[in-house]
Amino acid sequence: MIETPYLLFLGDAPDQLAAKVAQGIKDWRPDYAVAQFRMEGCKADMGLPDMTLAEAKAAGCKTMVVGVANRGGVISPAWKKVLVAALEEGFDLASGLHNLLRDEEDLAAVARATGRALHDVRVPEVDYPIANGRKRQGRRMLAVGTDCSVGKMYTALCMEREMRARGMNASFRATGQTGILITGDGVPLDAVVADFMSGAVEYLTPDNDPDHWDLIEGQGSLFHISYSGVTLALIHGGQPDALVVCHEPMRAHMRGLPEYALPSLEQVRDAALAMARVANPGCVVVGYAINTQALPEAEARAYVAEVEARLGLPATDPFRFGAAKLVDALAAL
Amino acid sequence: MIETPYLLFLGDAPDQLAAKVAQGIKDWRPDYAVAQFRMEGCKADMGLPDMTLAEAKAAGCKTMVVGVANRGGVISPAWKKVLVAALEEGFDLASGLHNLLRDEEDLAAVARATGRALHDVRVPEVDYPIANGRKRQGRRMLAVGTDCSVGKMYTALCMEREMRARGMNASFRATGQTGILITGDGVPLDAVVADFMSGAVEYLTPDNDPDHWDLIEGQGSLFHISYSGVTLALIHGGQPDALVVCHEPMRAHMRGLPEYALPSLEQVRDAALAMARVANPGCVVVGYAINTQALPEAEARAYVAEVEARLGLPATDPFRFGAAKLVDALAAL
Repeated sequence: MIETPYLLFLGDAPDQLAAKVAQGIKDWRPDYAVAQFRMEGCKADMGLPDMTLAEAKAAGCKTMVVGVANRGGVISPAWKKVLVAALEEGFDLASGLHNLLRDEEDLAAVARATGRALHDVRVPEVDYPIANGRKRQGRRMLAVGTDCSVGKMYTALCMEREMRARGMNASFRATGQTGILITGDGVPLDAVVADFMSGAVEYLTPDNDPDHWDLIEGQGSLFHISYSGVTLALIHGGQPDALVVCHEPMRAHMRGLPEYALPSLEQVRDAALAMARVANPGCVVVGYAINTQALPEAEARAYVAEVEARLGLPATDPFRFGAAKLVDALAAL
Repeated sequence: MIETPYLLFLGDAPDQLAAKVAQGIKDWRPDYAVAQFRMEGCKADMGLPDMTLAEAKAAGCKTMVVGVANRGGVISPAWKKVLVAALEEGFDLASGLHNLLRDEEDLAAVARATGRALHDVRVPEVDYPIANGRKRQGRRMLAVGTDCSVGKMYTALCMEREMRARGMNASFRATGQTGILITGDGVPLDAVVADFMSGAVEYLTPDNDPDHWDLIEGQGSLFHISYSGVTLALIHGGQPDALVVCHEPMRAHMRGLPEYALPSLEQVRDAALAMARVANPGCVVVGYAINTQALPEAEARAYVAEVEARLGLPATDPFRFGAAKLVDALAAL
């Protein structure tokens, strides 16, 4: 669990896109995004107050989050100076970088000396149990996809926002690095040891109020041969009551696998539902989330309408057109 | 890769069953099983020559394998004395124990000083790649099951024996601790990090001669919610040409999951085949392996005949009645 609120470290980001993690926090957890820290030459701007470390501390920030992707996989000396100063100022640090904070000798030493925490969200911090499959109270939605990176995290976050706006009892549950940094908590599922994957998902989505919905971020795809095992652990560990099938219409092939065509929405629906009903016989598919960012609006609306007509269930681009239809479907269960 | 042949350490095994790993090596790799080392009070006997460390060394043994399960999860001082002496004598050590050899300070220090290897086969020793899904040369059979521990390893080993007896080109591929100790090589798949599971299976079953068969030990079950992700990684990483569905007829429920009923053979056939065809569209189910150890012979034969009639494919208990039918089916592909 990462302490909030955050000071967002944008470093020397060469452009806005390099600060995608900071943008996600700003968009989805604005309450956590108190201020930004930019170094000389930084080309990203979250529209937040620029603060010194001391100002951010005074404003109540608890953790400095590395909200920017670094270049070349090394933490530069210029960054290091700020990160060390932040620890000295009393901030914890959180990062999803491939090169871990804890592997930097100076950061590790200063963190020990100051009693601050280094959160490398790529590495599990919990000894997860083996899944027991027992029925848990509360309800769960899982986003599944035709492929990796088709909008499963955004779908779950959009649904959470819509549900909270309606006063519904709902929690986004992060299963990847970006989601964990956005929300401050979650399971980095792709880094969990095989035997404990499904148990980690049970741990992430425990017993809850009967009217509470966990909105679980999906990973991979049952049809992506590199990561399908992670997807199935989510389906079985999450014991979802509802599935939303996510898709990006412009893909020529499965991500990273040029020889593999995408499955149809029908194939994903049928395969995911059959597997989900092993853990929860009452599971249903409630709708489809289409990532239309590459399509002009008229084409996007036509595509969504075609999916809805063909599959007989609500379809939308939840980020572009809102998640209301999907939430209506959940509420009607 | 563990160096062979072996001296089998039976320790102070309280009975024959406690030495199951040694028995497996003796049964399936008799060429590796040169001698046994028994301590006072040992109640297990593999029928091998009892040798001192010096005699076993002179007989060509390279590795002393802990062929016995220890009690209480600690390596006793009495065992320790022998293990240290074996390192000093020039043996490597190999073990599938939960408590690792490498975590014992004295063993680790002596191994370093003598330049010997400690093989803890529960821990991966390779940085496996992410699966790329490219079609590999050679052919592959994967054993899938209705549940855990229904005879997937034995099925693959029985088929390997039958194929080698016929002069066919075949290799058992171990994916669990016992299989790795038996054959000296393999991937401890349940201990691999999620993102690399499927890639580890690709690594285990690389390009091979066109007529070569990998006989891949299965793990878990698509219908076992704790371990199903591991199973799917085997199905997608192994890109099998052939599946054999394994089953144990006496199970009241899924292993460790009292609330979960077993799937039917038909359900496993259909689910496994649909997933296998993502990686290899030509995959077929070739037959059924029934673990009939709990049934009298007449009942066992009747059960197998019923499966064969109902499913329309060869069925056998490969350990009890031989694997010829399954190998015939592979050879006919």
